[in-house]
Amino acid sequence: MNETRTIEIKQNILAANDAAADAFRAELAGKGTFFVDVMASPGAGKTTLLLALSEELRKNASMGVIEADLESFVDSQKIKAAGLDAVQLETHGVCHVEMNMVRKAWDAFRGRAYDYLFLENIGNLVCPADFDTGAHCRVLLLSVPEGYDKVYKYPPIFSIVDALVVTKTDYLPMNPDFDMEVLKQQARALNPDIRIFETCARTGEGVPELAAWLADRKAEACER
Amino acid sequence: MNETRTIEIKQNILAANDAAADAFRAELAGKGTFFVDVMASPGAGKTTLLLALSEELRKNASMGVIEADLESFVDSQKIKAAGLDAVQLETHGVCHVEMNMVRKAWDAFRGRAYDYLFLENIGNLVCPADFDTGAHCRVLLLSVPEGYDKVYKYPPIFSIVDALVVTKTDYLPMNPDFDMEVLKQQARALNPDIRIFETCARTGEGVPELAAWLADRKAEACER
Repeated sequence: MNETRTIEIKQNILAANDAAADAFRAELAGKGTFFVDVMASPGAGKTTLLLALSEELRKNASMGVIEADLESFVDSQKIKAAGLDAVQLETHGVCHVEMNMVRKAWDAFRGRAYDYLFLENIGNLVCPADFDTGAHCRVLLLSVPEGYDKVYKYPPIFSIVDALVVTKTDYLPMNPDFDMEVLKQQARALNPDIRIFETCARTGEGVPELAAWLADRKAEACER
Repeated sequence: MNETRTIEIKQNILAANDAAADAFRAELAGKGTFFVDVMASPGAGKTTLLLALSEELRKNASMGVIEADLESFVDSQKIKAAGLDAVQLETHGVCHVEMNMVRKAWDAFRGRAYDYLFLENIGNLVCPADFDTGAHCRVLLLSVPEGYDKVYKYPPIFSIVDALVVTKTDYLPMNPDFDMEVLKQQARALNPDIRIFETCARTGEGVPELAAWLADRKAEACER
């Protein structure tokens, strides 16, 4: 198989995925469900931030969570223990989430209605950038201990997200070299419209601001 | 294209990669060069650990480093600034390193001889597990701030490595929930022969032990 044929097949797969994603996005908007794709490296604090966000959002809204991992039910158990609805998606080695997986997970909620649906994507800064999951909003987490020099190493994912959420700011005193201003400059140079939040799930820093921004985005995207 | 045909093509690609990897491994062993593939999440401390290791290994050996990233020369510049030879490999969006990339990077060293060659693989706990890079030894880094619950979420990569190197142990006081014993038990349940090191590049903890283990492995693998 020559390279042209390989690229053609990849384009066909992505085009089919994109069409299904557009349909899913419209369907959820019609139901009043705002769908957020949360992406990050392994261990950046996705689950912990979702738990902190739920404390804010649940004051006047309902939420469900799709937890994606190669294997295991570790994260969905944490989410359920906090009293939230969660569906675990095991990709069995696949490095990203595609629309057919999202659809299957959504069906597993059996028609329950939510104001917010979150997808905790596979911990990976590369492959998830290629696949539209039907979300209304894409958020990238970067934790302070990972370092601030990730924009130019992983440019595709920084360029496609709506917001960059810096997590674990309580680690800043241990990381005097973490240059928040350079990170912001590099992210905005690549993606001028990106919103940037500084958060700490342990202390709650920045979580109300992120929740308020999501509520505004929901009002724009959803019919009710 | 049906699924059987897709799997067949993937198997052919991997078989060609494996054959090239075996040839490269034998070639380097014959030259006395021990080749180590270093894998981890983004920000787990691969470059920093390599710099700390070089302080140990360079006492009586030479080393070269292949730095792989989607884009950018950030890491190879750090390595060169420390006086080491480095070649930057940009995968331009590809999520892992394959043999043809390793061969190209190795050729860029222009025949220089090293006792140790390191590959800093793409920051990714998923895709690099599928591709043999021709290394004699594969090492997985997991940093304390990422959390200890990664074995069952990313089992393929934990099952194929020779060693697990826990990095950033200086973060343990901030992470009282990090259960080192559970991590070790889970890693050994999946991979009974895995060697486990606890390290901190900042303080030097565990680095001499890792260097000594690599020297032993080199003596077994290389002809001189």
